[in-house]
Amino acid sequence: MFNIAVAQSGGPTCAINSSLVGVFREALKVPSVDAVFGSINGIEGIIDNHLVDLRTMILTNNDIELLKQTPSTVLGSCRYKLPDWREDEEVYKKIADTLRQRNIGAFLYIGGNDSMDTVKKLSEYFATIDLDVKIIGIPKTIDNDLCVTDHTPGFGSAAKYVAATMHEITRDSIVYSIPSVTIVEIMGRHAGWLTASSAVLHAMGETAPHLVYVPEVDFSLEKFIADVRQQMSKHKAVIVAVSEGIEVPEGVQSGVVDNFGHKYLSGIGKYLESVIRNEIGCKVRSIELNVMQRCSSHICSKTDIDEAEAVGAAGLRCAIEGGTGKVMVFRRIEDAPYTVVIETADAEDIANREKFLPAEYINSAGNNIRESALGYFLPLIQGDLNLITENGIPKHFALHESVLK
Amino acid sequence: MFNIAVAQSGGPTCAINSSLVGVFREALKVPSVDAVFGSINGIEGIIDNHLVDLRTMILTNNDIELLKQTPSTVLGSCRYKLPDWREDEEVYKKIADTLRQRNIGAFLYIGGNDSMDTVKKLSEYFATIDLDVKIIGIPKTIDNDLCVTDHTPGFGSAAKYVAATMHEITRDSIVYSIPSVTIVEIMGRHAGWLTASSAVLHAMGETAPHLVYVPEVDFSLEKFIADVRQQMSKHKAVIVAVSEGIEVPEGVQSGVVDNFGHKYLSGIGKYLESVIRNEIGCKVRSIELNVMQRCSSHICSKTDIDEAEAVGAAGLRCAIEGGTGKVMVFRRIEDAPYTVVIETADAEDIANREKFLPAEYINSAGNNIRESALGYFLPLIQGDLNLITENGIPKHFALHESVLK
Repeated sequence: MFNIAVAQSGGPTCAINSSLVGVFREALKVPSVDAVFGSINGIEGIIDNHLVDLRTMILTNNDIELLKQTPSTVLGSCRYKLPDWREDEEVYKKIADTLRQRNIGAFLYIGGNDSMDTVKKLSEYFATIDLDVKIIGIPKTIDNDLCVTDHTPGFGSAAKYVAATMHEITRDSIVYSIPSVTIVEIMGRHAGWLTASSAVLHAMGETAPHLVYVPEVDFSLEKFIADVRQQMSKHKAVIVAVSEGIEVPEGVQSGVVDNFGHKYLSGIGKYLESVIRNEIGCKVRSIELNVMQRCSSHICSKTDIDEAEAVGAAGLRCAIEGGTGKVMVFRRIEDAPYTVVIETADAEDIANREKFLPAEYINSAGNNIRESALGYFLPLIQGDLNLITENGIPKHFALHESVLK
Repeated sequence: MFNIAVAQSGGPTCAINSSLVGVFREALKVPSVDAVFGSINGIEGIIDNHLVDLRTMILTNNDIELLKQTPSTVLGSCRYKLPDWREDEEVYKKIADTLRQRNIGAFLYIGGNDSMDTVKKLSEYFATIDLDVKIIGIPKTIDNDLCVTDHTPGFGSAAKYVAATMHEITRDSIVYSIPSVTIVEIMGRHAGWLTASSAVLHAMGETAPHLVYVPEVDFSLEKFIADVRQQMSKHKAVIVAVSEGIEVPEGVQSGVVDNFGHKYLSGIGKYLESVIRNEIGCKVRSIELNVMQRCSSHICSKTDIDEAEAVGAAGLRCAIEGGTGKVMVFRRIEDAPYTVVIETADAEDIANREKFLPAEYINSAGNNIRESALGYFLPLIQGDLNLITENGIPKHFALHESVLK
């Protein structure tokens, strides 16, 4: 008999708790597994030996369903990057101590590129000290920027929120008789996946978003202003989707930072709003979708939530079968009917790398997404959870805040 | 036989199109009513004789259902305030011309305080020229600041979005191990109704929002900082709900405007974020719910949408029965079981006035909402529409943009 540990890391998504459910449920099916420990605040909980027994926390099927519809990380999260163990072994020793003391045979780490670096380093380190603890990474990120995998859990729900909200913003924008420009700033760090996903509205006959700017294309302020003028000649209410990660000309980004403070690194929408106001002088507004795009479980994608659970379960099976230093990935067989298989990849092929929007997804003008790319996005936003509500709003599963030190 | 005209005015909500449905459906039941004309861009469509025959636009029951789940104003909107006819009769003559030419016997105007001013002025003017056109106001506003009526259509859906989103933001905020403050800026102009509605989370056992600031209470920066410090001693992730309309000390608001440009009048959240960063130095972020709080039909309140339709239908009946210069209002009989009746009020009692949050809803410290007030809010956010979706996201009813000149 041995125990399992699972932890959640990095920025919140709508699907991380569903992956936790996948690990937990699958572990209960394995006769040789005893306890499933949840590590509080990612790898920090392993370092500090701060673990909770998930069987004392997830008691009923109702708890399972609530967890699947609860955004963010029920066990807390961290932004902790392990040092190289050849230079600093201290923290590795603490991790090994906890794993030994708790009789843990496998550790599942749900996270993004940085967390996969932890998976890689721990699996390498454990090999050097002959510690038989399997380490498996379960991908998650709304940015969809992980290599090897077709897509990442969390992205589909974020894309669904972005598309539905852009649709609503389009309705909101067209009401007045004067021309206007609406700039919607979307997350995704250096990758344009989430911003590009807003173009699924085109499959519904919408002309919006009329312009889409992603970090994969060099951004030119002059071209941006010309693009907006051109769209204004065709549409009364021009809708622009812009990635937080586009590179504006030197000095501008730092100017934004200076004016808006440290938090406003992502204030590119507000900056472009001021550019349009000054250069074109029309009615203009900017909207930052902010954390809502990563935590709006009330409009999550059932496909995403189900896949997140499946990939968590597959990760547990992989560990039980002896895999380590691996990350679970999706390989897409077909867009329609949508078919994916779950496979494994080496953590070192995913850790610290980013996957960008393919050039063929972007139109020749570099300011929108091709119709041919929509088949990639559409399957990921399908389906709705049958949400459990209380007082008219979706109910959540939450640990008491005292548990999350 | 005579015709009906209906128009939509002011800021978008999730329920305005449902009131249009109410007027349209009820009009079809009246044998003496022929066409139902929709006026494009509120009263501007009447002035310019820019009307569409709704029977050529709303063709099926499916269209009706789509309209009810479509946010904003399908006929466009305006921010047009009529002059006093004793000083400037020109535009009144144009309105009378359109109404006569189109053989319109009743005009239903869906809007907020300003639109009720139009209802009042037109009914008075028509009496002076003996024009027998009934004018009825159908209330709408997410601000919930209309006098006489218990609440306004549009408010319930906005409150539901705010509550569900605050719930999700609460989950998002608690993940890291370091203390943090999250400031959520909520609409409502000079009234705190929508901001106060976020406190319904308390009925679900949430401690968030830990602080709620509404315009009805004088705002003190010193007290705000002390309040935040006090809450930080109790909670790792402090959640603050703040109305866009709170009055900050002289100079501050203008400072925000100067730094952020004209659009940032509502940038109070960002301002308070900088105050907390400078004064307390902890992790802090601000989130503006922006137009999403008025157009997120994907999480609308069925109670709100149904009531919006009912009040539109009641307005049409009122006009047919000879009412004019009236506004349809709700009178609440009971919170639980929730019971309201629809009545009429005089437009002059509603036009250009605002209704504020009652003092007894606010705690003695002036920084949160009393539990006893939640019974007012809770019934308004109940129920979900069975949304028609396409490609995984809610479908909308939209006129071709060429119709909305």
